[in-house]
Parts: sequence; structure tokens; C-alpha cells
Amino acid sequence: MRAAKASGLDAFGYNRSMDGVEAARFDGFDASNSLDGVLDRAAQADALIVLAVPMPALPIMLDHIRSTAPDCALTDVTSVKGAVLQAVRKHGLADRFVGGHPMAGTAHSGWAAGDAKLFVGAPWVLSVDDGVDPAVWATVMHLALACGSFVVPARSDEHDAAAAAISHLPHLLAETLAATAGHVPLAFALAAGSFRDGTRVAATAPDLVRAMCEANSEQLLGSLDQAIDLLTRARASLAGSGSVAELVETGHAARMRYDSFSRPQILTTTIGAPDWRDELAAAGRAGGVIRSALPVLGSPG
Amino acid sequence: MRAAKASGLDAFGYNRSMDGVEAARFDGFDASNSLDGVLDRAAQADALIVLAVPMPALPIMLDHIRSTAPDCALTDVTSVKGAVLQAVRKHGLADRFVGGHPMAGTAHSGWAAGDAKLFVGAPWVLSVDDGVDPAVWATVMHLALACGSFVVPARSDEHDAAAAAISHLPHLLAETLAATAGHVPLAFALAAGSFRDGTRVAATAPDLVRAMCEANSEQLLGSLDQAIDLLTRARASLAGSGSVAELVETGHAARMRYDSFSRPQILTTTIGAPDWRDELAAAGRAGGVIRSALPVLGSPG
Repeated sequence: MRAAKASGLDAFGYNRSMDGVEAARFDGFDASNSLDGVLDRAAQADALIVLAVPMPALPIMLDHIRSTAPDCALTDVTSVKGAVLQAVRKHGLADRFVGGHPMAGTAHSGWAAGDAKLFVGAPWVLSVDDGVDPAVWATVMHLALACGSFVVPARSDEHDAAAAAISHLPHLLAETLAATAGHVPLAFALAAGSFRDGTRVAATAPDLVRAMCEANSEQLLGSLDQAIDLLTRARASLAGSGSVAELVETGHAARMRYDSFSRPQILTTTIGAPDWRDELAAAGRAGGVIRSALPVLGSPG
Repeated sequence: MRAAKASGLDAFGYNRSMDGVEAARFDGFDASNSLDGVLDRAAQADALIVLAVPMPALPIMLDHIRSTAPDCALTDVTSVKGAVLQAVRKHGLADRFVGGHPMAGTAHSGWAAGDAKLFVGAPWVLSVDDGVDPAVWATVMHLALACGSFVVPARSDEHDAAAAAISHLPHLLAETLAATAGHVPLAFALAAGSFRDGTRVAATAPDLVRAMCEANSEQLLGSLDQAIDLLTRARASLAGSGSVAELVETGHAARMRYDSFSRPQILTTTIGAPDWRDELAAAGRAGGVIRSALPVLGSPG
């Protein structure tokens, strides 16, 4: 709400906590703790609804939206996309829904933790799943750009597979490294840079790590299988021939590709044109990002 | 040689490269490319010989030392300790040998990469294996302290097990993470902090990673088995009950223990007193370090 308002957009919000609502009002924002009141206003104004609740709170919010504001454009900011899409579909709201994941945040929560600049320069993933509506997509794209983010278009399943590999697997590897070293006398006495870096995210609160990993279990299982397979093969090679060449060379080559990974700007796609979703998914996969609004078919430029 | 001389010790050195020798001489150091000449001088001066060569060069150096300076005190600065100890024993030089591992360095090599301050504030592991000589141990301890390091006493096998867990395993996990993400479309497009940290050491030159891992293969196999076992159990638990609680809680607890790990100073051991080696090994295991010279039995304080 802070970022949207700072960019000149009209914004009003709901929070179940009266303390949060009062803090927001004190700072001059339009907030209420009446869910149906806010949703009714959203329906009247034909607003874009941005769901910013944890997964467990999602079904009850979707129940209320279906009753009170079923025709509003709808997006979310949850870190898993497949499970949210399933819940939205189950509630019959998929026609007006475009999943989102702004990749920015802090370890804190509540009104005081907000920051109008939080999204500046951050990737904001927007889902290009089969059937997403071009007009809703454009609306959410404008919000993300207005908040200072660049947009990464991605299918929900690919987003979740990537998140498993680059966020959830690193957490489990860090836990594994800390746990393994924790059993070795003298290990902490000698630990230096590679151990500190490799276990940094193991300092994250266990509940947060569990929540993110367990909510993406299907995709994380695939990443874990890959990692276990690579380590098992390296172990066999080290025991058999004294060499870890294959793993080390593959890993190094991948890290070098990452270091030289570029983010070309997506410029030529028209939202709503034939195959626009597949085109954006392919561009996002190749590192492409949207930094200024793409045109929408049938709309004045 | 720079650090020893800066601390006021007498030092002279050998390098096989005439370029290196000339660069050292140009900077005012006493260097030569005649190995037997330098070893002969060492024998005359009853010097401490510090071996600073890669593992493959070790046997030929030990051959020369056995022929020319077999009674000199001897130490090394190699990152694995068990394999060096074996080679030293094979050459019949174990009586005068105390293995060392100053945990400091740069990615560069050659004379120009040296720095008299390199060892300041760094742990310098000294081996307390069965039978190490108290007088030689004290001599090497004085060198390490003179260079600005603190001394961590450790048995060679425990050093290597700890190095496997806190240095070699982190490298292989980083390679695994990079290689796994490298196969996932969109992964690099979404990669952020936990991926960057988790793969940082995968940017190290593959030859260096292989050399350190493969030279410590026996201990690394144990660490790899532990890591694979932890990941396999987490995978089964995630697939079966949707939970990664066990791994996450164990890893987090270990990382918290590491964050609060303290380094008490070792003050009460007398080098050469009964059980001094076991006493130092136990103190080092508990995080103890030597910051000022311990007394030696029978020597004036």
C-alpha cells in the first residue's frame, strides 16, 4: 500500500489487526479491519485486489472475495505459485487472477516493517499460466512497474521449480552442512569463510525455513533428488578413482554461466497477441525482464 | 619468510624458480635456488625447516632433507596433515617433525603474492600427534606466534576430519547447488542471496578444489556419507509426511552453537609435561587457542 500510494496510485487496505489498521491510518493511509466492507468498496471501484496473506489464510480470503468481489482483478504476493493457483481455481476465481511474487522482503512483519521503496530494483514474477487474462495481466504489470520493480514473466510451475533450486535447496544444504560439521570435534574451532557462507541461511528461524520448503514440497523433492544423485556419484568417484572432477567441473561451469547471466529487456511482445503467454514465458526463462510497460492488444499505446 | 623476518627472526629460503629467488633478493631477502646449499646451511645453523610446497613436491624435498639436514627441526604449512605425516614417517623424519597448517592464504602464488601480515590473527594449527617432540613443538609455536597467529593444537587425523567438514564438504555442496540449479530453466533469472552465498566457493578454480578434496579423500568420504544420509532422510520425510523438521532443526541448532562458540585461551599446559599432547588436543577440540607462548618443561620461563 505504501509503494502503490507513493507511485500515485489510489490504494486502500484491509488488515485483521486493529493495531495495524490504526498504525496505517496514523500514517495517513486508508485502512480498515472490515474485510467485507473493503471488498465491497473494491467491487464498487473495480479495484485490483492484492492478496498479501500467508498460505493458511488464503482459503478464507478467497471465500470472501467470491461472495463480495468476484469480478475484481486479483493477484497475490506469495512465494509459492502453484499452490496459490490451485486454491484460486478451486474457488472459481481463476479467470480474473494473475499470480505474482515480488522477490523482496524483510525478516520483520507488521505495519512498521513496511517501506515504500521495498520493491525498487527487485524482480517481481508475474505468472503467464495458460488462460491468464491480458487486461488483468497488464494491470498487475503496471502495479509492479509503478512500485519500481522489473517484471519477470514465468509459468507458476516453472517459478516453483526454480524457487526450489535457488532458494529451498540452498536452505537444506546449509542445514546439512551445519549438522554435519556439528558432529565433528574441532570443526567449529577451524571453521572459516567457506563454512560461514555455506551455513549463513541455517541461522534463519526453523519455522520460516520449514514453511517455505514444505509449501513447495513437490518441486523441492525433484531438486533434492538431483542434489543427492550428484553427491552420491561424486562419492562413488572419490572412493573408486580418487577424483571429484565431474562434480567440480559441472558446478564450476554452472556458476560461471550464472556470473555471466544477463537480463535483456523484453520489448517486442504485445500482451494479448497470439501466443503472448508462451512468448513471455520463453523470454523470462532466458533471463528477459520487463522494465517499461508492454503494449496491450486493442488498447491505445 | 617475510613474516618471520618482520618479527625479527633470522630467515633464509629456497625456491626452485630463479625468478622468484631474484625477486626475493631484490626485496632484501636471503634466498637461493640451490636446494642442497640451503639445506646444508640449515644443518649448520640447526635451523627450523618450514616446508611450503604442494603435496606432489613433498617426497623429493624429504629425500633431500634426509640426505643433507636430517637432524633439523621440521614443519610444514600444507592444508592436509595426515598424508604429510605419512610421507614424513616413510622418510624416517618423524622424530623432528611437527605438522602445521596456518589457515590463511590468497588465491595467488609466487613471491609477489606474499605479505608479512598474512598470518596476523589467523589460526595456525599445530599437530599434537603421538610422539611429537616438545622442543620442536615449542620452536614451531614460537614461529606461529611471532607471525601474529594464534595456535590451535590438534591431532592430524582430527584436523583432516574437521577440514573435510568445514572446508571440503562446503565446496562440494556449493558445486552441487550450482550444478542442480544449472539444469532448471528460470533458476538463474530468479537467483538471489541464498543462491549467491551457497555457490560462492563454486567460483574457485576447479583444479584447486579437486586438489584439496582429493588429497583428503579418506576424511571427505565420511563427511559426504553424513551429508548424503541427512539429505536422504529429509527427502524421505518430506515425501512421506511433508516435513523437513528434523534436518532444519538439527542444522539450525548446530549453526547457533557455532555462533556462540568461544575461543578460550590455553594457559595452564606445560609443553613436555606428562600427557601434554592429549591435554592440548582436548583443549583445541573445545575451541582453546594459544595466544602467548606456553612454558616448556625444563626450560627457563
